[in-house]
Amino acid sequence: MSLDLKSIRTVHERIRPYINRTPVLTSSRLDKASGASLFFKCENFQKIGAFKARGATNAVFSLDDATALRGVATHSSGNHGAALARAAKLRGIPAHIVMPSNSAKVKVRAVASYGAQIVSCEPTEAARESACAEVIAKTSATLIHSFENEDVIAGQGTAALELLEEVSDLDLVMCPVGGGGLLCGTAVAAKSMRPKVKVIAVEPANADDAAQSFRAGRLIHTEKKFTIADGLRTNVGAPNFVIIQRYVDDIVTVSEEAIIAAMRTVWETMKIIIEPSAAVPYAAIAESKINIGGKRVGIVLTGGNVDLDALPWMGMR
Amino acid sequence: MSLDLKSIRTVHERIRPYINRTPVLTSSRLDKASGASLFFKCENFQKIGAFKARGATNAVFSLDDATALRGVATHSSGNHGAALARAAKLRGIPAHIVMPSNSAKVKVRAVASYGAQIVSCEPTEAARESACAEVIAKTSATLIHSFENEDVIAGQGTAALELLEEVSDLDLVMCPVGGGGLLCGTAVAAKSMRPKVKVIAVEPANADDAAQSFRAGRLIHTEKKFTIADGLRTNVGAPNFVIIQRYVDDIVTVSEEAIIAAMRTVWETMKIIIEPSAAVPYAAIAESKINIGGKRVGIVLTGGNVDLDALPWMGMR
Repeated sequence: MSLDLKSIRTVHERIRPYINRTPVLTSSRLDKASGASLFFKCENFQKIGAFKARGATNAVFSLDDATALRGVATHSSGNHGAALARAAKLRGIPAHIVMPSNSAKVKVRAVASYGAQIVSCEPTEAARESACAEVIAKTSATLIHSFENEDVIAGQGTAALELLEEVSDLDLVMCPVGGGGLLCGTAVAAKSMRPKVKVIAVEPANADDAAQSFRAGRLIHTEKKFTIADGLRTNVGAPNFVIIQRYVDDIVTVSEEAIIAAMRTVWETMKIIIEPSAAVPYAAIAESKINIGGKRVGIVLTGGNVDLDALPWMGMR
Repeated sequence: MSLDLKSIRTVHERIRPYINRTPVLTSSRLDKASGASLFFKCENFQKIGAFKARGATNAVFSLDDATALRGVATHSSGNHGAALARAAKLRGIPAHIVMPSNSAKVKVRAVASYGAQIVSCEPTEAARESACAEVIAKTSATLIHSFENEDVIAGQGTAALELLEEVSDLDLVMCPVGGGGLLCGTAVAAKSMRPKVKVIAVEPANADDAAQSFRAGRLIHTEKKFTIADGLRTNVGAPNFVIIQRYVDDIVTVSEEAIIAAMRTVWETMKIIIEPSAAVPYAAIAESKINIGGKRVGIVLTGGNVDLDALPWMGMR
């Protein structure tokens, strides 16, 4: 498969029976506050509560029957694990999900609810990868990496495809960047459908490897400080970075305080639940990190899976 | 004005420029959990975050110019005050909102943000009514009662009008009942558009005057215990009860625990923010207080104004 608009359209047809076409919401208050027209693509309303359902579903349904029967495997502490487990269940094949031992219980339960095999491991990148390799050696399952996988990237691109189908005359498209799966799919879809659109990625300042790499023109892996945006703690993937260099116009960073404030603003104003990672693009707008005055801006709200017993503003006042 | 489908349609045309046409959302998970098809009319996405924008806007824009110029007044601790303040601002007339001194600060700020005159009073029904009467005597403003007002009732009915326009083949329509403004508008609209639809109201067991009155066939005012559903603490109005007796099929009650659990379920499953009062109908479904197996059920989610620093499940675990 080559990653282009045609392939993303094919992917969209493939996964359509299994995913939600999520709504695009607007807010006159946030438009007023930002001086722009904002169009929020609500992937918090997606199956499993995050855009990850798109890529994982495409990866699973792209396998030929013989390969599929051997099952799929991945390591994930978050939404990709649940997305892959769900997709495997839909296709009726085994899924092996390696999860670090400190994963949120709600995420472990979500994966288990789809009947996946859960393999617990130490909470380090090395332990995750070796546990995953071991499972694959034992089962011959196919690795579905959460972002370094073209089928996954193409699947994630279908969110932007739907967004630009619905709102064709956007000036900017914004999304967060962690490993780069969503960003690459978004950038390819958006730039192919509307060459003059700007694609802007946003990253927590505490995990700014993508921004640093983008400025340097080469892949830089950084030591991460803690960020509340748990979906964005990972380093950007090497194949993803190649696509980012080609299609993305800028990567800006935001503070932890801005992420929490943006999350709360979206909850209070739009009455929708988004997770911290999903608040990162609006944080850049609220912090005036980019100039959007008078522009039409599409924003991918990536997910809505939060622990309602531990909201980031609790105990802050 | 007489309260019928024709008048509600006229009202809808009148207020349309000033309100949101809110979306109807569905949830495959909640459908599965309930064994029915649920259609949620999302008035939490309405202007000021609640359906109250509809009735107050209609009441204000139904006044003739001379009357309107003298302003409007009401007493309200909650969403009706903000709705009336906003509607008055849109028409460019004064609004006087009597608010009990223990009103949530966020609600006082909302009213103030629309430029209304706020009159603080003791937090008793008698004090509210006498403060409001005093303001009216002084200013000649018109009283816009939050539910004992036909223009308000007709305005609230436009939510059901939109719901049944979008989902025509409903078997049941459910909404909470406090004073009865929403319930009366909903019942008249729904029964007129689809005579065989059942209209079921739901009330907190701790504030069950409407259910008791419905069973007794006469208006009963009860001493209220505390309910988390702050929008439903009031007694049902006398003119409202007449309409309820004619159009409503049943009124059921739910426990406080069920309301909190239902609110949390909707947040976690649908990723939308609803206030406790809005969770009351789904609480009745979750507690199996009504039989909806296999049915198509419309539910008005009445609002989404909550204090994110004081969620009902905080400190419960």
